[in-house]
Amino acid sequence: MDRPELEAVTIVIFGASGDLAHRKIVPALHSLYATAVLHPDSRILGVSRRPQSDAEFREGLRESCARHSRCWKDGKGWEAFASMASYLQGDVDDPSCYGLLARRLEEGLPRNLLFYLAISPDQFSRVARGLEGAGLGSVGREAAKEGSWRRLLVEKPFGTDGKSAHELNRVLSSVFDEGDIFRIDHYLGKEVVQNLLYFRFANSVFEPLWNRRYIEKVEIDVLETQGIGTRGGYYDRAGAARDMLQNHLIQLLCLAAMEPPSSLDPEAIRDEKVKVLRSIPRYTTEAYHERSARGQYRGGRGAGGESLPDYLGEAKVAPASLTETFASLRLEVDNWRFAGVPFILRTGKALDRGASEIRVHFRRPPATLFAGVCSENLPTNEIVIRIQPDEGIWLNFNAKEPGSAEIERKELRFSYAKGGGESLPEAYERLLADAFAGDSTLFIRADETEEAWRVVDGLELAWLSPGAPRLIGYPAGSSPDDPLFGKAGT
Amino acid sequence: MDRPELEAVTIVIFGASGDLAHRKIVPALHSLYATAVLHPDSRILGVSRRPQSDAEFREGLRESCARHSRCWKDGKGWEAFASMASYLQGDVDDPSCYGLLARRLEEGLPRNLLFYLAISPDQFSRVARGLEGAGLGSVGREAAKEGSWRRLLVEKPFGTDGKSAHELNRVLSSVFDEGDIFRIDHYLGKEVVQNLLYFRFANSVFEPLWNRRYIEKVEIDVLETQGIGTRGGYYDRAGAARDMLQNHLIQLLCLAAMEPPSSLDPEAIRDEKVKVLRSIPRYTTEAYHERSARGQYRGGRGAGGESLPDYLGEAKVAPASLTETFASLRLEVDNWRFAGVPFILRTGKALDRGASEIRVHFRRPPATLFAGVCSENLPTNEIVIRIQPDEGIWLNFNAKEPGSAEIERKELRFSYAKGGGESLPEAYERLLADAFAGDSTLFIRADETEEAWRVVDGLELAWLSPGAPRLIGYPAGSSPDDPLFGKAGT
Repeated sequence: MDRPELEAVTIVIFGASGDLAHRKIVPALHSLYATAVLHPDSRILGVSRRPQSDAEFREGLRESCARHSRCWKDGKGWEAFASMASYLQGDVDDPSCYGLLARRLEEGLPRNLLFYLAISPDQFSRVARGLEGAGLGSVGREAAKEGSWRRLLVEKPFGTDGKSAHELNRVLSSVFDEGDIFRIDHYLGKEVVQNLLYFRFANSVFEPLWNRRYIEKVEIDVLETQGIGTRGGYYDRAGAARDMLQNHLIQLLCLAAMEPPSSLDPEAIRDEKVKVLRSIPRYTTEAYHERSARGQYRGGRGAGGESLPDYLGEAKVAPASLTETFASLRLEVDNWRFAGVPFILRTGKALDRGASEIRVHFRRPPATLFAGVCSENLPTNEIVIRIQPDEGIWLNFNAKEPGSAEIERKELRFSYAKGGGESLPEAYERLLADAFAGDSTLFIRADETEEAWRVVDGLELAWLSPGAPRLIGYPAGSSPDDPLFGKAGT
Repeated sequence: MDRPELEAVTIVIFGASGDLAHRKIVPALHSLYATAVLHPDSRILGVSRRPQSDAEFREGLRESCARHSRCWKDGKGWEAFASMASYLQGDVDDPSCYGLLARRLEEGLPRNLLFYLAISPDQFSRVARGLEGAGLGSVGREAAKEGSWRRLLVEKPFGTDGKSAHELNRVLSSVFDEGDIFRIDHYLGKEVVQNLLYFRFANSVFEPLWNRRYIEKVEIDVLETQGIGTRGGYYDRAGAARDMLQNHLIQLLCLAAMEPPSSLDPEAIRDEKVKVLRSIPRYTTEAYHERSARGQYRGGRGAGGESLPDYLGEAKVAPASLTETFASLRLEVDNWRFAGVPFILRTGKALDRGASEIRVHFRRPPATLFAGVCSENLPTNEIVIRIQPDEGIWLNFNAKEPGSAEIERKELRFSYAKGGGESLPEAYERLLADAFAGDSTLFIRADETEEAWRVVDGLELAWLSPGAPRLIGYPAGSSPDDPLFGKAGT
C-alpha cells in the first residue's frame, strides 16, 4: 500500500474544546507531526463556542499534549507544532458560523480540508448542511481538477438506530461523496485489530483451521472496569448495545469471520465485512430473548477496590432508567464457513476486568488416546487475540507435564510489548494518517453501519417486547462470567 | 498411565567404572532415590574389572553425583543412598564372572533384577550368554509365578548394521523375552521429545495441519559443537550416520511422522513408528548419492572460539580415515500423509552451533493479497520443536509491523524454562523409572532397530559405491548451512 506523497492539510476540528479533541485528536496530531506523518505546512483550526484567543487555545493544547501525546519528549519542538494551531469561535448551531469558517479558510490555509466532527452526534447533520451552505462540501467537485480534496471525519455513534443512520447517511452523502466520508470506529485503528487480517491471511497455518469444522465457538469481549463517569446524558439514551456492541464488537466480529478479500483495497475489505453482516440471520423476537442478556450496575467496589456508585445515582441518568450497562448477544454467521458456530458478544461497564479480546475456541480433540492420563475431557485449544491490555496473540495448547504423564495446559505466546520495544502508535494516529492519505480501509462504509444497526435494532426491539430478559442489577466489580447474567452468553 | 506399585530392585551395572555409569546412570539413580521413584530397599551392584572396595566405589559415585545429580543438594542424605551401592570385581569376558554374580545376588539382594549393559557394544552378546549360563535370563521363566522380574537394559549403538543388529537381537532374545529387553535411545527420554506425542495428538489445531497438504518439508537437526574427544576408537569405526542418524534422528523422524496410535500402550506406539520406517522407500544407490552429503572436520575454531584439532589428528583415529563426522540425508515417508514431503536429516560434530530440533516448514501462503506490502514471497510458517538448548516449541508467523503496513516475522513461543521453573528430569531418570515399571514405550523394539538399520545400511553401501558424494573437509566451527556441504539437504 504505497502512500501518496505527504500533502499539507487544514484540519478543522468541530468541538475543539471538548474532551475527545484534547485527549485524542490533538495529541495524535502532535505525534504525527513529531513522526513526520503530518506535513509541516499543515494547519489545525479549532472551532467551538468558547471565546478564547489563539494563544489560550494553544496553551490548552500544550497541557493536553503533555499528558496524552506519545511523542511529547518534554515539549521539545512544541513551538513549531503550536504555531500550526489557531482558533475560531463559532456555534455550529448558528448558520453564520460556516461563512466565518469559509472566509478564514481563504486566508492562506492549505486547501486540502479535513473536517473533524468531534461534537454531539445529533449535530452531525446540521454541520454537514452548514458546510454545504458555505460551499465547503465535496459533492460535484472534482478533487483532481481542483488540486485539493475535502473530507469529513465522523465520530461514533453513527445514528441511534438503522433509520437514523440511514437518514444521516442521506444527508452526509448529499454534501460529501462516500469516498470522502470517514466514519470512525477507533477499534479499527488499533494495531492488534489491524494485524488480524495479516494473522489470518498472511499465514498458512491458521486459515485452514478457521471454519466450522475446527472452531467450536468464538467469544468477543469488550469489558470495562469504569462506570459511565460524566457521560450520563449521552449514555442513558444509548446503553451498552448501541454504544459498544453496534460498532466495536460487530466490527471485531466482521474481521474475525470475513472471507479473504480479493485484495487489501478498502472496498474489497469492506465488501467482505458487509457479507458477514448480511449472513447474520434476522432473528425473531423470541430468538433474541433467548440469545441475549442485559444488566445495569449497582453500587459496589470496582476492579481496583474503588467505590463505584449505583448507575441510577450517576449524573444525568433518569431516576428509574432501564438502560443497560451490560449486554451480551449470541449470533451466528450463517454461511459455508461458520454456519452453526456461535459468536458470543459481551460488553459492559463496571466489571471486574478491563479486557478486549477475540477468543476462538477450537473443538475438543478426541480424548480416548489420553484417557489414561487425563480422566476428564481434554482442555480445548484456544487462539486469543488480545486487543487490550497486554496486546498480543496466544494459543493455548495441551502439553505433557514435565516429569509426569499428565496433561498440562500451556501457551504459545506472542506479545506486542515484548516483540516491539517501542510504544504502539495510538489508534487515532493511524486513522488520521489514513484520512490524510484518503485510505478508507479502516473506516466504516455507509452500508456497514446500516447492516450493523439492523442486528442491534432487532435486539432493542426484542428488549421492548413481552418476554424480554429482565434487566439484571449487578454489583459493580462483577465478573461477566457470573451466573447472575444467565446463560445467554454460553 | 498408572504406574505399578514401587518395588525394590537390584540394579546390576556392567561397566560400573565407565564414563556413562558415572556421568549418567548413577546420578540418575541418585535423583530417582531423592524423588522417591527408586524404592529405598533397592540395591546398586557395580561390576567391572577394576579392583576396588565398596567404600572406594561409593567414594567415586559420590564425586559423580556431586557433579551430575540433579538432586544433589550438598550431599544431604548421601549416606543412605550410598549404602545401597556395592561393588563386584569381575571381567565380563571371563565366564566365571557370572557365577560370582549369581552367588552375590543370592545374598539377600532384591530379587527383581535390572542388568544394565554400560559396556562396549561388542560385549553385549557375551554378557547375555554369561547371564544365561548363570541362570539369570528371563526366557522360560514366569515373572508372575516367581514373584520377581529380570530385565536387560542395552545402550546404543545396537549393532553396526542390520545384520549385526539382527544377530544381536537373536542372541538377546534367547536369554530375555522381548518384553524384558529395553534398548535405550536416550533422546526418547527427553521431555520435549516425549511431549511431541501430546503436542500432536492432544490438540485439535495441529493435527489437521500435519500432512502433505500443508507441510512443505521437515528438517531434523542434531548438531554438536564438540569434536569426538576421547571417543576416537569407537567413533572412527562408526561415523555420524551409524552413531547418530540411525538412532536419534530416525527416532525423531518416527515421532514427527507417525499416525496417531490407537492407544498410548507401548506396542501401539511402536507399531506406528515401525510403520513410518517401513514407508521409507528402498532407495537405489544413485538416489542415495543424490540425497546425501558427508563431511569430516578439519582443524579450526570451535563455536566457543576454542581451537579444535583436525579429525585426522584426534586420538585413535586412522591416519587416512574416511569416516564422516557430518552426515545429511533427505528421506521421504511414502504414505498417504506425507508422500512427497522431504524429511531432511542432518547431524555432525564440530559445527558452529549445538542444536537439536525438528523444524516443520509449512507451505507458502498465496502472496497476491499482500503483494502491495511485501514485494518478495511471504515468509513461510514454521513450527520448531527445540530439544536442546532452550527446550521449547515455537511457531513463526507473519504479522503486521506496528506503525506500518509491512509484513514482519514474529514468534508464538512456548519455553519449558519459563513455563516450568523447576529443572526438567534428565532423560536417564525417565528411562530408568520406566524400566523399573516395565514400561517399554520409550525404548526401541527389535524390529524398529532393524528397520532403521535398513535405511542406514543403504546409505553406507551407497557411500562405498562409485559415484558416492565425496567426503567434504570442513573447518571446525562451520555452519551446517554452509554451501560447501552441497545441496543434498535442501
